[in-house]
Amino acid sequence: MRKSILNMLRNNANEYLSGEEISRQLSVSRTAIWKHMQTLKQAGYEIEAHPRQGYRLRSVPDRLLPDEIRDQLKTTMLGQHEIYYFDDIDSTNNEAKKQANLGCHEGAIVLSEAQNRGRGRIARSWFSPSGKGIWLSIILKPPFLPSDAPKCTLLAAVAVTKAIRTITKVQCGIKWPNDILYKGKKIVGILTEMNAEMDAINYIVIGMGINVNIDKDEFPEELREIATSLSQASGQPIARLTLLQAILAELETEYNKVIQHGFSQMLDEWRQLSVTLGQTIDALGGSRQFSGVAIDIDQDGTLLVQTEEKIERIIAGDISIRPKV
Amino acid sequence: MRKSILNMLRNNANEYLSGEEISRQLSVSRTAIWKHMQTLKQAGYEIEAHPRQGYRLRSVPDRLLPDEIRDQLKTTMLGQHEIYYFDDIDSTNNEAKKQANLGCHEGAIVLSEAQNRGRGRIARSWFSPSGKGIWLSIILKPPFLPSDAPKCTLLAAVAVTKAIRTITKVQCGIKWPNDILYKGKKIVGILTEMNAEMDAINYIVIGMGINVNIDKDEFPEELREIATSLSQASGQPIARLTLLQAILAELETEYNKVIQHGFSQMLDEWRQLSVTLGQTIDALGGSRQFSGVAIDIDQDGTLLVQTEEKIERIIAGDISIRPKV
Repeated sequence: MRKSILNMLRNNANEYLSGEEISRQLSVSRTAIWKHMQTLKQAGYEIEAHPRQGYRLRSVPDRLLPDEIRDQLKTTMLGQHEIYYFDDIDSTNNEAKKQANLGCHEGAIVLSEAQNRGRGRIARSWFSPSGKGIWLSIILKPPFLPSDAPKCTLLAAVAVTKAIRTITKVQCGIKWPNDILYKGKKIVGILTEMNAEMDAINYIVIGMGINVNIDKDEFPEELREIATSLSQASGQPIARLTLLQAILAELETEYNKVIQHGFSQMLDEWRQLSVTLGQTIDALGGSRQFSGVAIDIDQDGTLLVQTEEKIERIIAGDISIRPKV
Repeated sequence: MRKSILNMLRNNANEYLSGEEISRQLSVSRTAIWKHMQTLKQAGYEIEAHPRQGYRLRSVPDRLLPDEIRDQLKTTMLGQHEIYYFDDIDSTNNEAKKQANLGCHEGAIVLSEAQNRGRGRIARSWFSPSGKGIWLSIILKPPFLPSDAPKCTLLAAVAVTKAIRTITKVQCGIKWPNDILYKGKKIVGILTEMNAEMDAINYIVIGMGINVNIDKDEFPEELREIATSLSQASGQPIARLTLLQAILAELETEYNKVIQHGFSQMLDEWRQLSVTLGQTIDALGGSRQFSGVAIDIDQDGTLLVQTEEKIERIIAGDISIRPKV
């Protein structure tokens, strides 16, 4: 009922809607309508109530509420099944793995306004302040071999970059394998985890932390020189809901393309959106250490680096890279 | 206390041990000793009680009890931490994944006398009658990349084959990638599952179903021509406990070798224990279908098959193989 009232308000956003009209269309008492309006206000909806003219929706809350996400969502799978929504959570990836183990649908998503133990790759943490970003995990059950899973990270990076460019006009790019940067600073991190047999993937969880409306001085000091946000990059606040919907739509499109036609087109898009290719980099970690020019990724997503002697191959996790100073 | 009494009985297996002696050594009343003896009998221990001479251990139960496993176990990790033991369970792999998610130690194991939903690769079931086999799952946290995980299956196959050959003298061999056969019939199936980030394995669960003391007519009819057991192969019943301890010890040895020296020695052992290499096979499934001679496995564990035209590469899960009729 609350959803029906909200839909009526939304469809009449520019004019007042009388309590009588709502009561008639939804066959509900005026008192019940009043109570629902109070609940909506408590959830953060700004609703103007005029004694004679009725109700008018002034603004929806800046929250990623499941009903708001599904409204106008242009997907058939992602976000159309379970949306697990939290005010605060340890890590959306942890919750997503829990739900996947309990047997949720492919395309289920986990969202939280804040994460208190947001995770990056390996054991790094991810700063996830309340209401300021999109802290999202997506559950997929792809028909790939486990060895193809790293390419799902590349796929997610492509989809998110395209969505960000379309919605915010911020010309961000992908640092191999799965960070999204703007002018060298991190805007998005992606953490993919999988559960697999040797033969088949049971599920993968694609987690992403997207810094949307975080001011420079809101970042902890140690992050200010290496991280930024979309609002900083574009100079204006960004509607999280619109961006989230665009990301889900892009991701579903890319995913379906890969399932139908394989990875090669996605890898080409990745190459075009990359800020790593063509760059002189230092490769660090593991037992190897070298510098060279990142010349390409191969069909497995391995980074190829031309050093003075030969072409080095870098697998994610093996070695980390940074631009040569 | 029960364990101490059992140890005393075990160390005096050929003679009677007086209640007075036990009472003195363990500082416990005669009545308490009598009660512990009743509990041990209920657990399946055969204990002879002679009015004047005392107690004597005649046999231990044919059960894979954690205390019995740890007694004389020659490992430092496998089976030395948690042993989750069940009379009946859906699947030891499911339980192992649950325990791994809750944060158990590396080397923890799950055992059940029976499985009511034992699983083989993909969605196949595994016949797991009570007390007749070793239905075991092992939790490892290897420092490998996820792309190395399939080799853990090969490693398990090597260790189990070696342990079986040593303990039972049954000359079984490995069918690529992870079945253990005797005269073409399956004796052991291995199902490895992993939980990983793109960079690192969180944990792997190596599940194995070992047909130990199953008579031919105890198998469901549809399995009689394709499966067999160690008791059938050797013509006598096999002590499950001894075999289990040998498997854990071999597996730990192989695992430590791989961590210290890499996979190449293990892959050589695999080649020697394989019944697939040198065999003319039909490869089936997927979009490809061809016949050829299995000539080798490469460093990733991929099977190389020489057809008339070229060398085909087979990844587990991609295609299944069977001997050419």
